[in-house]
Amino acid sequence: MPDLPRIVIVGAGFGGAFTARYLSRLYRGKIEIELINNNNYFIFQPLLPEVASGVVNAQDAVTPLRAMLPKVRHRQAEVKQIDFDHKRVHVLQGRRRRMIKISYDHLVLAVGQRVDLSLFPGLAEHSLSMKTLADAFSLRNRILQCLEFADVTGNPKLKRLFLSFVVVGGGFSGVETLGELQDMIRRALRYYPNIKLSEVRCTLLQRGDRILPELPSSLADYACRKLSKRGVEILLNTSLHGATGAYVETGDGRIIPTATIIATIGNGPIPLLVEHPRLHLERGKVPVNRCLQVEHLDSVWAVGDAALIPMHNDGEEPVYAPPTAQFAIREAHRLAHNIMAVLNDRPVQAFQYKSQGMLASLGAYQGAADIFGIRISGVSAWAVWRGFYMLKLPGFATQLRVALNWIFDYFIPRTIVEIEQPERPAVRFANFRKGDRLFDRGELLDGFYLVLDGQLEVRTPDPGGGKDFVKIVAPQQHLGDRIVSYNTVCRGRVTALQNTEVMIINQQDFVRLRKSFHLLDNYLREQTGKKYPSHFYGHIEGMESDDGTATPQ
Amino acid sequence: MPDLPRIVIVGAGFGGAFTARYLSRLYRGKIEIELINNNNYFIFQPLLPEVASGVVNAQDAVTPLRAMLPKVRHRQAEVKQIDFDHKRVHVLQGRRRRMIKISYDHLVLAVGQRVDLSLFPGLAEHSLSMKTLADAFSLRNRILQCLEFADVTGNPKLKRLFLSFVVVGGGFSGVETLGELQDMIRRALRYYPNIKLSEVRCTLLQRGDRILPELPSSLADYACRKLSKRGVEILLNTSLHGATGAYVETGDGRIIPTATIIATIGNGPIPLLVEHPRLHLERGKVPVNRCLQVEHLDSVWAVGDAALIPMHNDGEEPVYAPPTAQFAIREAHRLAHNIMAVLNDRPVQAFQYKSQGMLASLGAYQGAADIFGIRISGVSAWAVWRGFYMLKLPGFATQLRVALNWIFDYFIPRTIVEIEQPERPAVRFANFRKGDRLFDRGELLDGFYLVLDGQLEVRTPDPGGGKDFVKIVAPQQHLGDRIVSYNTVCRGRVTALQNTEVMIINQQDFVRLRKSFHLLDNYLREQTGKKYPSHFYGHIEGMESDDGTATPQ
Repeated sequence: MPDLPRIVIVGAGFGGAFTARYLSRLYRGKIEIELINNNNYFIFQPLLPEVASGVVNAQDAVTPLRAMLPKVRHRQAEVKQIDFDHKRVHVLQGRRRRMIKISYDHLVLAVGQRVDLSLFPGLAEHSLSMKTLADAFSLRNRILQCLEFADVTGNPKLKRLFLSFVVVGGGFSGVETLGELQDMIRRALRYYPNIKLSEVRCTLLQRGDRILPELPSSLADYACRKLSKRGVEILLNTSLHGATGAYVETGDGRIIPTATIIATIGNGPIPLLVEHPRLHLERGKVPVNRCLQVEHLDSVWAVGDAALIPMHNDGEEPVYAPPTAQFAIREAHRLAHNIMAVLNDRPVQAFQYKSQGMLASLGAYQGAADIFGIRISGVSAWAVWRGFYMLKLPGFATQLRVALNWIFDYFIPRTIVEIEQPERPAVRFANFRKGDRLFDRGELLDGFYLVLDGQLEVRTPDPGGGKDFVKIVAPQQHLGDRIVSYNTVCRGRVTALQNTEVMIINQQDFVRLRKSFHLLDNYLREQTGKKYPSHFYGHIEGMESDDGTATPQ
Repeated sequence: MPDLPRIVIVGAGFGGAFTARYLSRLYRGKIEIELINNNNYFIFQPLLPEVASGVVNAQDAVTPLRAMLPKVRHRQAEVKQIDFDHKRVHVLQGRRRRMIKISYDHLVLAVGQRVDLSLFPGLAEHSLSMKTLADAFSLRNRILQCLEFADVTGNPKLKRLFLSFVVVGGGFSGVETLGELQDMIRRALRYYPNIKLSEVRCTLLQRGDRILPELPSSLADYACRKLSKRGVEILLNTSLHGATGAYVETGDGRIIPTATIIATIGNGPIPLLVEHPRLHLERGKVPVNRCLQVEHLDSVWAVGDAALIPMHNDGEEPVYAPPTAQFAIREAHRLAHNIMAVLNDRPVQAFQYKSQGMLASLGAYQGAADIFGIRISGVSAWAVWRGFYMLKLPGFATQLRVALNWIFDYFIPRTIVEIEQPERPAVRFANFRKGDRLFDRGELLDGFYLVLDGQLEVRTPDPGGGKDFVKIVAPQQHLGDRIVSYNTVCRGRVTALQNTEVMIINQQDFVRLRKSFHLLDNYLREQTGKKYPSHFYGHIEGMESDDGTATPQ
């Protein structure tokens, strides 16, 4: 049996998965298709806001790739390097991440884009994204956690913080997420007797002068009106300056306190593409010709969000295919035909497509749609949204699951079960602005803090009634080594004297690290003695008590 | 309005949640009830194996406490300390884990037990438990991950490892988990063309001479027979000696290679109880009198698995209430009445109850049951199991969800979506036995390895063809600092020269830590130069290629 031509597709988003689907449907048995992806499922991005709001279960919202593409060879692995000369892809697979080399005859780059928030100080460290299933799942749990905390706290400032939700970006993802989120919170409040809907603050930050720029402005205005009526605050012409764990700062200097920031902005190329010496990215994407070929490489194609695909010229300027699912699917269709054309020595054809319209769901049975130029809004647009996406969902089992989730959501109260998410990563970074309070006396530190840049002040009252003891924590100095290890409360008030960046190690991981790594333990022992006069080490009483329940002290 | 008596219940397992339920049903408005728990849901333990096998979605298998107990004050927090003198509970709550004090008139300790695997070297680090929702959810994802890896690997030894699943403990939890797991794998294999059912090895280790000791031996024999017929290997009279990341070792020295160990043994008291100077635990539990009072403390009660409850005497020896859900619910009922009796100056009564029977589900429509002495087995026992637990599930919405999950599982193929779980904790420990291979040349290290005890050898061939370069890694020496940071492959073969314990820091966290913490970076820079002769640092080719797909080198 002669070897069949091997098509290796990297990435199983709309571009990659549908390329595999078209290839396997049209040319079954004549080629070998291998699909490499980090996960074993295809994620239908438009459903993510509904996963975040708990309408659809995380597992039910996605389609297992092996079920969607039974004739394709699947490999759950991370692509580490591409050797275009030897036509090989190097991947890391297995629990120990072994390096494997996979040869190809044709390679399809369908790796999408990644979230890149590096332009906004603090945003990457303090925000949630809405790109993966894990993102949506985390967001749902975060919101429920905020409601749990807000319901029991006796501190009005903390309550405001926990009940403020900020979405950055007014495109489809931002608007749909905020709409679903607001609806979810409204429904959940029946279980939280100490929270009033009027205390919940949902804010959308949009840099441009309107939301949903892909829709006609009359529909965007409709969406804006409807969301505002539901209590969502939409700030147009408002850019983001930066974020901390306690607030966002807008370009014009406004501070919005919040414990939950959802960033739907900032796309960039994945490192594999950026770092490859043979790929010359333009606008952060792989440039291809109109037939989706990467011109200077042999038998390499690109599709979807990772590809820069020229469609036609608008005067001097080329117009590129927009990064939407709709276009990616059509690109995949063209690509599948072009690969077979090359294999059969037939000419390849240029990709051509015209958008058929756009749909947005606003949650709470509201929507806005522009289909073939016909504009609809309200419950009918919402129903069209659901019907359309239902048909587009790959896999009958997944369609059925999602449909059932939708039906039950109508009849059964949505669950408020919070699945606890481990804090990841264990070593993380945080930003504080000058004047920010990090900790008050009596609070428990949540980790070991190492100052990277800036300056912190720890101000501790003298138990003998003398002057406060003030300690400055400069870069490469730390906070919390003793407190974390011995699990007691903070005896001083910690404030940022300048804009300050810190590295934080989770308590559990820090304790293990210190206990096991003598280098660290010896260093910290040496430092600890220098920090406080010994009479500051007495027993201190907790500083907080929950009003209404605790005996006052 | 006079202050109502405040009953604070710590822990929302069967004992705690049902105490709250009985109290709020019987004495609504006359008392204030606060329930403190780590999660915001009640978990029905018997359903965990079905969550692990994906029959029931994680969110659907549990009942939100706020929905189950609407008249109760709920607090999601961790109890840190109990001050019996001032009748106050100190909890940590909120994202920053602030310390709050909560006063009580009556305190109910219903904190359950925790998994304690410290008797078995390596087991805690290398096994999964089946106690929490997160455990079951992780297990499901781990099994699917193993199938993904086994399907694509070209290494038969690795394939065997990934397809071997070992359950430790032959009680209800172990047997039901293994039964569900085997059934899940069997069904999932249709999606994994390169795995045959005969390659899958499911093993149960049971120390005693029979499984399911709580059931009559005829039913246990039936379960044993049925499971064996389905290919499950049951090793009776087999204790566990220890575990590593690659195998378990039995008491009689047998080595069973496996990448997935599920431990259903080893219960112990939670640290809060152990460390409290006023609580004098017996058999790892809080001793109470027959009326569920902790005798030497004022207005403190204990219930459920955390309590040592004397029922009657068998000759000299007292007989204690068994740690089952059935008993916990009845204890809660007695406790609720006794608390009200004390509040109303009526006499308290002793707890009395006789077991009504036991049920076990074996997966694949098989079960075994002993109800009021009537023994049934097969599909009828399985149906009784489902019906009975459905009725016992708290909350109509949860009952409906679970019923729907069951129905769909019959009609819709179970999804094989693997939700990736972050590796937790970032700093972890691993054990290797003398002679174990940790890494081969060409493999990527999965983290920074610090030897804590024992000795590793790194053997690197000389690129010039000379003698191997051998480096010994002793305690407090490390492996992988350069490899992890610069992301290249291992250039030597790493073997344990003795039984060795290591600490591992995840790659991502290690890179962040090293970059930010100058202490560590300076130390590692200093060490690296000493490690290898410079000519060992050339480019090396990856050592593995996937047979069948890669061009041989």
